[in-house]
This record gives sequence, structure tokens and C-alpha cells, in this order.
Amino acid sequence: MKNFIIIPFVILFLACNSSTEKKISKEQMPVSNTMLERVEPPNWWVNFKDSSLQLLVKENNIGDFTPSISYAGVTIDKFHKARSENYLFIDILIEKNTNPGKFDIVFTSEKGLKKTHTYELKSRVKSAEDYVGFNSSDAIYLITPDRFANADESTDVIKNLKDTSLDRTDGYKRHGGDLKGIINHIDYISNLGFTTVWPTPVLLNDMARGSYHGYAITDYYTVDPRFGTMADYKKLADDLREKGMKLIMDQVANHCGLEHWWMKDIPFDDWVNNQKNYEDNIDNWGWESNIGSNHRRTTNQDFYASESDKKGNNEGWFVADMPDLNQRNPFMAKYIIQNSIWWIETLGLGGIRQDTYPYPDKDFMSDWAGAIMAEYPNFSIVGEEWSYNPLLVGYWQKGANNKDGYESNLKSPMDFPMQKAIIDGINEEESWDKGLVKLYEGLANDFHYTTPKDIMVFLDNHDKSRLYTEVKEDAAKAKMAFSYMLLLPRIPQVYYGTEILMDDSANPGDHGLIRTDFPGGFKGDKINAFTGTGLSEKQKDMQSFVSKLLNYRKNSKAIHDGKTIHFAPFMGTYFLFRILNDEIVVHIINKNDKPITIDLKRYAEIGLEGKTLKNLISGHDYIWGDSMELKNKGSIILTTKK
Amino acid sequence: MKNFIIIPFVILFLACNSSTEKKISKEQMPVSNTMLERVEPPNWWVNFKDSSLQLLVKENNIGDFTPSISYAGVTIDKFHKARSENYLFIDILIEKNTNPGKFDIVFTSEKGLKKTHTYELKSRVKSAEDYVGFNSSDAIYLITPDRFANADESTDVIKNLKDTSLDRTDGYKRHGGDLKGIINHIDYISNLGFTTVWPTPVLLNDMARGSYHGYAITDYYTVDPRFGTMADYKKLADDLREKGMKLIMDQVANHCGLEHWWMKDIPFDDWVNNQKNYEDNIDNWGWESNIGSNHRRTTNQDFYASESDKKGNNEGWFVADMPDLNQRNPFMAKYIIQNSIWWIETLGLGGIRQDTYPYPDKDFMSDWAGAIMAEYPNFSIVGEEWSYNPLLVGYWQKGANNKDGYESNLKSPMDFPMQKAIIDGINEEESWDKGLVKLYEGLANDFHYTTPKDIMVFLDNHDKSRLYTEVKEDAAKAKMAFSYMLLLPRIPQVYYGTEILMDDSANPGDHGLIRTDFPGGFKGDKINAFTGTGLSEKQKDMQSFVSKLLNYRKNSKAIHDGKTIHFAPFMGTYFLFRILNDEIVVHIINKNDKPITIDLKRYAEIGLEGKTLKNLISGHDYIWGDSMELKNKGSIILTTKK
Repeated sequence: MKNFIIIPFVILFLACNSSTEKKISKEQMPVSNTMLERVEPPNWWVNFKDSSLQLLVKENNIGDFTPSISYAGVTIDKFHKARSENYLFIDILIEKNTNPGKFDIVFTSEKGLKKTHTYELKSRVKSAEDYVGFNSSDAIYLITPDRFANADESTDVIKNLKDTSLDRTDGYKRHGGDLKGIINHIDYISNLGFTTVWPTPVLLNDMARGSYHGYAITDYYTVDPRFGTMADYKKLADDLREKGMKLIMDQVANHCGLEHWWMKDIPFDDWVNNQKNYEDNIDNWGWESNIGSNHRRTTNQDFYASESDKKGNNEGWFVADMPDLNQRNPFMAKYIIQNSIWWIETLGLGGIRQDTYPYPDKDFMSDWAGAIMAEYPNFSIVGEEWSYNPLLVGYWQKGANNKDGYESNLKSPMDFPMQKAIIDGINEEESWDKGLVKLYEGLANDFHYTTPKDIMVFLDNHDKSRLYTEVKEDAAKAKMAFSYMLLLPRIPQVYYGTEILMDDSANPGDHGLIRTDFPGGFKGDKINAFTGTGLSEKQKDMQSFVSKLLNYRKNSKAIHDGKTIHFAPFMGTYFLFRILNDEIVVHIINKNDKPITIDLKRYAEIGLEGKTLKNLISGHDYIWGDSMELKNKGSIILTTKK
Repeated sequence: MKNFIIIPFVILFLACNSSTEKKISKEQMPVSNTMLERVEPPNWWVNFKDSSLQLLVKENNIGDFTPSISYAGVTIDKFHKARSENYLFIDILIEKNTNPGKFDIVFTSEKGLKKTHTYELKSRVKSAEDYVGFNSSDAIYLITPDRFANADESTDVIKNLKDTSLDRTDGYKRHGGDLKGIINHIDYISNLGFTTVWPTPVLLNDMARGSYHGYAITDYYTVDPRFGTMADYKKLADDLREKGMKLIMDQVANHCGLEHWWMKDIPFDDWVNNQKNYEDNIDNWGWESNIGSNHRRTTNQDFYASESDKKGNNEGWFVADMPDLNQRNPFMAKYIIQNSIWWIETLGLGGIRQDTYPYPDKDFMSDWAGAIMAEYPNFSIVGEEWSYNPLLVGYWQKGANNKDGYESNLKSPMDFPMQKAIIDGINEEESWDKGLVKLYEGLANDFHYTTPKDIMVFLDNHDKSRLYTEVKEDAAKAKMAFSYMLLLPRIPQVYYGTEILMDDSANPGDHGLIRTDFPGGFKGDKINAFTGTGLSEKQKDMQSFVSKLLNYRKNSKAIHDGKTIHFAPFMGTYFLFRILNDEIVVHIINKNDKPITIDLKRYAEIGLEGKTLKNLISGHDYIWGDSMELKNKGSIILTTKK
């Protein structure tokens, strides 16, 4: 059997406020205030719209106890025993305008034994409306924290965690990057022009192997100590906020890690899907006994899908060491929703990225997103549907007019279809139905989406081959794709290092290689992309290109909210315009190796004739005349904005 | 200048009914009843819902004349002169319950000259509701009439038409097939199990080259004499109707042939699109001076499409010898709508197939289909949107919830996406995202469509490579594709000869070769597919396979209207079920070359355990047990129906 490590919460408050003391005095019983093994969420807040709170209590034989609370405005509505006697679930109601403060939850057994736990209801730091999520004015920098920068080598290996690997030569071992490493380089990210940071998950992954990626969470309330502390996570959020930037938290509602603490003492029979199979085979668990997902994600939409295939997708385990959470168990559902809200409130998040969106129970996902958006009306959530089919992507977006009546409450799906269209279109030789027309017709599909500008677009991410590898290491093509993406009516996301043409060309698609260490983030790095030391001219050029574009984009209302007009590709060129009031931004892709001249009459309806525009990259003025000579393969970005 | 041939309408009726006579007597003027060059529609009917009728009158200097009608219930609302003095457009109102009959239209010039034209309002043969269009209970046999059967060699060459070619060795010349050839083989088509015949256009194509295909119409009211006469066309419709079958007419609203009679004397400045360019270059017209369509069909949907691209698609000429009709000219619009209704009423059609659907003005197309469906509520129209993108196909279907508010009124789009999915999926080697999963995920997209069962699906047609060529001449694969298509919730369409594995393998995609002569349809054919003489065993086997399936499908309510359940492909197999009440039809594709055994537990939800089913092809009984052994690559079709 595998070892099980408890990372205790140090939440031990002895003080009670006066109103609580008064109530407690009525009980007239001496109570020893001992710390319970777990009470989750570890604290809560007053004045949420939803007045209910459900506490998961874990403690030996706690099922034999009856809880009571004596605090003005707080009542226990119900409590529930579980299959395991070591759990109690307490439904608490918190009246409007309840004072923030601490109180004891007193647990009394039939035999008169008592245990107490001090619980805190905090006051909310800012109003619900002020949690403004990422939107089309933002640009997101996606980071794999283990691979970005290592600021604290003392936490690289934590001896009482299962994975003590530290080997920067192995793409699947830990490399030592941490939250402080990100904090130390916020200026770099900000100077590039990004406004939002999305680190992949940093919660505890006490897994024996591959713990670095973070998607096998073993404790939903604890930061993995190899990444840092709760204080570090809060500092990252605070420091970003101070610079007007946003933090996205990467959350996983579909599955946990096999070493999650509750897998050793599962509260209910149906806490995870295919639980019986797991429990029957627990000593020999592995790939062979896994009831894996069939990964047939279309079963979420398909009117003809068999029940067995629907279950196969939604209830199968993502992989053998990621138990599939059963969100149809109402205690699990509440646990996940509260966990999300706890993190939003604790960190003051600017968004959530939800993993593997089409795998959990979809009605739950709608409830989950709905609950969050009800509390934080201006918040943003982006969900990962890895499909190249716009029908599926569109299905998941809030407001979609789905025939089955499904309302996801999800503002932002991810744009895998456009990602593929851009990569394919940039790479292909031009012909009637190949090449730039893929971008043109891909973008035309926007007519299907509820709100295209809320969709997150990207060229690469932690699961996909790097842009530079995808375009066969052609920097001009990388720029075409990059600048085009930034000008779309979308929320762009960039994977760390794409600004310096990081690649996985040695073994395209290899996850370890995709998540290569960022040069300069680790002691002894000869190349330092933060300072520019050792970067090639091509890399410096791309870094500058990215920075110029993103810093323009940051304040470009035309790109954030403007009208989009594009023209069918012609002679290996493709013109896209973003327009708002006086600001017109022109994006031109030119795939021709030899100079060509473009008759600008075709674009007359834009009304640019005679206007002076600025080339965003060269800084030169350009007067829009009858024709335009394009000398070099690449992209040109012009703006009327002075 | 090219010669222009007039094919006059012989509609000269002297008799008038008594009520007409009475009215005319009031005029008190002697009138010589001469035939005008053209009055179109050549007749009309009483008791349409739409009481208006607009006559196009063509006659030398008719613009100088004023028309009058004296017939109870019939009034001239307005009349309109055109750019050319040789036209007059007369708006007529026909009151409800007007008696059918003939009357004179009297044209009087300012100088007192008179011309008359006798016009007939017929009574309608059957009620509007009885024009029942093709639907999911039908199977459509698509024929290129020139290539199917030549019953009358006397009409193979018509000397006063421009294209006098007759060369069966040249795929782009005429081969001599005709309407009588189809009529003579209705039994063959019916015995195969088809219920509906769609011949490609048979109206006059008096073009110098390539006239055989029929899509360059030069007279919208005349049957091409090489195909036969109006009487032949009516006989085809009547003979089909007698057998309970339906006739689909292939219509073209987007363009006419360059040799259309009106191109020599164009009524208005804006009768065709890019007309000025044509008229300026009329003596040197050709590909080089053509304002061709940009063929960017996504401009119909794309919110970002430029105005110039929208015009480029909708107003460009399809090809240089097909003038693009301007349906925004209200006289043209009315002309096309009335022409369609005229043919429905004249032939008692069971459907219209409309060519190049995304090219004409889309608001007009909505009006056109809406006008037809208003008169014939149970009629069916299928429109050709040649796109593999379900978003575009779905956009065109009646009831689609389009964000731009567009309502097409079109019941049946064509299923190019599913056609491609089937061909790709059958051909590809099985893997996670290739092979049968293309069929499975393609069909899953049905969640997007308003009414999937109204969509017309096909494997090949007159523009696409033959099925047998597409599957690399693998008869087992041809059968998989074929039987799968027939079991879908769709209206299946089969191109003539696919039942005997006709191919274009010598030059895949070559139009002339795709439209190969049907063996047995032409004098001297050594092989006769109608009788089976000379067919290979493979061909006979396919013919029998097609016949068994279609004849079962004809009466299978489960296939016409049943519920669909399918299971994700597994081990190179794919199970699809169609279910209605007691009838369950099972379709299994097995791609394995070696025998395999399938555990049937996975399909338990269908409830077939212990039931005896019949194999539709072998006729053998099959008892549904715990497992199924699949011995051969191919498709298996089982039914619970006795």
C-alpha cells in the first residue's frame, strides 16, 4: 500500500467574538477545543448570495457525534453521516448580515464525549462585482510553474512527499520551478504586454510520478510545497493585482490524484465513479484494472449516443491514477463548488481555467459555473474542450441556443478549431481550399458563436506542440500566426517561451519537451531570456515583435471590442481589419517569397484611402494609396492610431 | 455574333369560354388574334393562394402598347415597360374562385395598333396538399439523362441547335440518352427499391459546347428536344406517379446559359449581374472578360465578410458562359418563382432540387422557397450547399436558429459533410481519431440540425467521384458505406450505376467519366445492367445488395422515422440501431479482415437479448446472444421485423 501524507491545515483560533461567547455560555458545558483532522472549506465568508455552507468534517469516528454551533446568524440546518464513520457533512445556514468572526463547532457523541473545532467566517475584502475576470482586453501568459523559474531551491525536493525526483534532464521529472520564480518575473511578463497569468495547477500533487504537471491534485486546499506556500500564492495574486494584472487559477473538477487523501477512506459508496471496481482491486490498481474513460466527448452533445457510451465518457477515469470524481453525489458537488469559491475569495482571482471540461457530469458543470457566476457576476471561466469542431465548442458557451436546452454558464470555451485552422493555414501551400483560406473560413465560423470575443484563442499550450515547431521553425510564419491571433476578436493565450521561439522539434508533441525550462529561470542557465543574454537574433526579434504587438493591443479598443472585416485570401495575401471609431488596425499576411503589388481598390470600403497609418513593428508611417508593395513574407500590422 | 434559335411555344387557343366572350363583347373592337413572340408563364392556374401573376411579354416594340384584359375575376393591376422596348411586364390579379378558361390579352398602341394574345388559366388538377414531396421514406435515384438510356435515336442530334456533337467516346459530348430512356426503365429503378427519380436538368441548353449536362438553361419553359418533348416529361412524371413514385426537377435559379434567348435583348440594365461588363465586351466575351464568382460561399454566413467579397460570391458569374441572374430585380425574382410553380403544377412534381444554393441572392432564395412552400405545404426542396462544414449546411435548413435571423424556408440541404465523413471513415485505417469514428462523430453533429431526417445524404453524385473509385474498388467497403447511408435518419440519394459499382478510376473526379453511360441503355451495349447480361459477379452482388436493402427500407418505419442509437466504434466495428416500436434494425460495420468475436453486453440497453433477427442480405435468422462472431469484413444488417 502506498504511504499517505497529511498536510495539516494550521487553522487554530482560540479567540471568539463576544456574541459567540454569550451563546456558548448557554451550553454550560466545559469543552476542550481540539483541532480536528479536517474541516473543509477551512474557513468561509459572510454575505455571499448563497447563504448555505456545507462543511466536510473528517475525524476518527466523527460519524458518532452531533454537531452544534452557537453564533448569531449561524445555524446548522442538517448534518449527514457518510458510509465511513470518519466523516460528517454539516449543512450550515448563514443569515444575511451575519457578523464576521470565529466560533466553535461543538461535536457531542452519544456517550457525551465532546470535540470542538473553531471556525471562522471572514468578511469579504471587496464587493462581488469587483472580481472582474479576464476578457478580450487581456492577453494571457500560460506558465508551467515547474519549468518557468526556480527562485527557491530549498523547496525543490520535499522529503516527505512521494516524488522526490529532481532532474532537469528528464522532461517528466520535477525541475524546481516555483511560485516565487513567477513572482520575481512579473515585470518581464508585464513588459511583454501580458495582462493575465495562468499558471497550471499548483495545489498539492503528492503523486509518486509526474507530479510536476499538477493535474493530479491530492489536496484541494493546499499549495504544493515544492511550488511554495499559500503566502506565495497570495503574493503572486497581490503583486499581479498591484500591476493591474489578473491571476487565473487552473482547477480540476473532473478528477483528483490517486493519492488524494480521501482515497484511503472514501466517504461514500459513490464518491468517485467506478468506485467499486477501484475498491475491489485496490491492492493491484493500475492501468490493467482501470475503468478508463472512452474519451468519446461527443456523447455530451450527440442525440444518438448510447447510454453506455455516455457513462463511458463521463464516468470513466481520465487515466488510471486520476480517480473520476462523481459530481452527481451532492456532497461532492458542493465540495467542488465551495472549493472554487474559496480560492476566488482567498486569492482575489481574475479567472478560473477548468480542465477537461467535457468529462465531468455536464449538469454539474453548469451548476458549478452558474454558482460561481451568481456570486461573481463579472468573473470569467474558461473551459477546455479539446475539439476542432466549432459545433462542440459553441455548445459549451453561455447563451448557446442548444436544442437539448443545455446552458453551460461558461463564458469562455477554448478555441481549438481556430488554433488548428491557423497552424494548418499558415503551413499549407496556397491553393483554392488550402492555406490562408483556412484562417478566413475558420474565422467565418464565428457566426455560430454566442460571443466570439469571449472565446480564448491560442497557438500552443502545455499539451500541444510549440508554435515554432508547428511552423517548421520558420520565424516569419510564427509571426504571421502570432500577430493574426492577437488581432482576432478573442482572448489570446500564449504559452511561456513562445515569445522566444521555444520548440519541441527534437520530438514534436512530447510533453516533457513542450514544457521545456524557460532559459534564465534556473541557476546556471547560460541563456537568460529575461535579460536577453545569449538569445539569438531571431529570438530577440520575436520577443520584440511580441512585446510591441501586445503593448499596442493592451490599449487598443478596436482590437478589444471593434468590428471585424476581412477579405478572402487573394494572391497569397490575407487582409483583416479591426475597427472602432477612429481606430483602424490592419493585419496583412503575405505568404509570397517574391515582392508583389496589391491593388488596394478591393479594400476601399474600409475608407483608408489617403490616410497615414503607422507600422506597429517598424514604427514607420505608411500612406494608404492605390496599391501596396509587399516585399517580404510575413505579417504587417498598421494602425491609424497616433 | 452567335446565332440565336427560337423554340416557339405552340400555345394558340382560339376558343374562349362564355363568360370571357361576354366581357370581350363590351370592347366592341375587331381584334386580330395573333401569336406574340413570348408570353411567360405560357399559362397559369386559378386558385393559387397568391392571387398575383406577372407576365413577361416579349414582342417587337411591345413597350409601345397598353395591355387590357376582359375576363371575370381577372384584372391588370399594373404594367411595366422595360429598358428594351421589346418587353412588357404585366401584373395581373386573379380573384379567388375565378373560372378557369381562356381570354385575350389585348395590346393597343398609341397609334391604335392592336395585338392580342390568348392566355389560359387552367383549373388545378389536385389540391395543394397532395403535392407531397420526397421525405425520409424515399430513396432517390439520380440520373444524368444523356448518359442513362437512349430510347429515341432520332432526336440525338437536332440540327438547328448549336451543339450537334454525338460522340459516346467523349465524356463531354452528347451521348444520346433521353427522357424516353428513363421512362422505359422505371421498372428497373422501382425494382431496385427506389421511390424517387431526380434527373439532372432537361430544359433547353442550346449551348455550343457541353450542352449534355443541362445546367446552362437557355429557355426555362422548353424541354431540350434532344431529351424529348414536354409530353415525354409529363409521361415520365405520370408513369412514376402511377407506380407511387416521385419526380424531382433539377432547377437553376442562379444562372442561365449564355445562349439564353434574353441575353440577345436584355430587358433591364440589371437583369443579370455584372451586366455592364458583359454588354461592354459582348463581342469578345469569354473567360478573360468574365466577372467570375469568387466562390467564397462562407460570405453568406460570415459576420465579418467584406461587402466586396459578398458581391463577389453572389454577383459573380458561376462560369463565363453562365450569366448570373440578378434576383434583386423584382421582375427576375417573380419570373423564377413563377417558373418553379409552373413546373410543379404542370408535372405534378414530387420535389425540386435547386442548384448552387449559396450563389443567388439569399433573401431571394428564402422568398422563392417560401413562395413554393406557401402554395404546396407538403412539398420538398433540396438545395445544394457544397460544403463539408455542418455549420453552413445547418444554416440553410428551415427552422435553423440563425443569429442573423435568416430563415431559408428550405426543408432539405444536402449532406456533403456526412458524405465526406463516410468516405474518409471507411477508407482510413482505424485509429483513435481516424476510421469509423469519422462516421460516428459525423453523425453526432446531427444535434445541430433542425431536422436531420429531412437532409439528403449521398455517397456520390454527378459532380463527385464514384463510390467504387472512392473506396479504391473494394466492394466490401462500398457496401459498408452504402448500407450505412441507407440506415441513417436521412433521405438517401444514389447516383445511377452505383448499384453496379460504376467507377471513374481511370481519371478520378473527371466529370465526363463520372457520368459514364449506363450499360444496356445504348444500342449495341454488350453489357446490360437492366437485365444483368454481362455484369460481373461483383456487380450482380452489389445490385442485389442494393435492391434487398432499398426494398426493405421502403417499408421500414424504423428507418424512416425511428430513434437512432449508435455506439462508439470499437475494435474496428461500429454498431448503429434504428428503432420504432417493435422494429429494430441493426447496422454493423466490421472492418476486420480476420474473424473477431464481439461481446454483446455493451449493447444491452437496446434490449435485443434472446431475440431472433433476420439478416436482410442472407435471409438467415440470427439469435442475439452474449457474443457475436464477425467473420468477414463488410456490413451486416439485421432486423426484428418478420
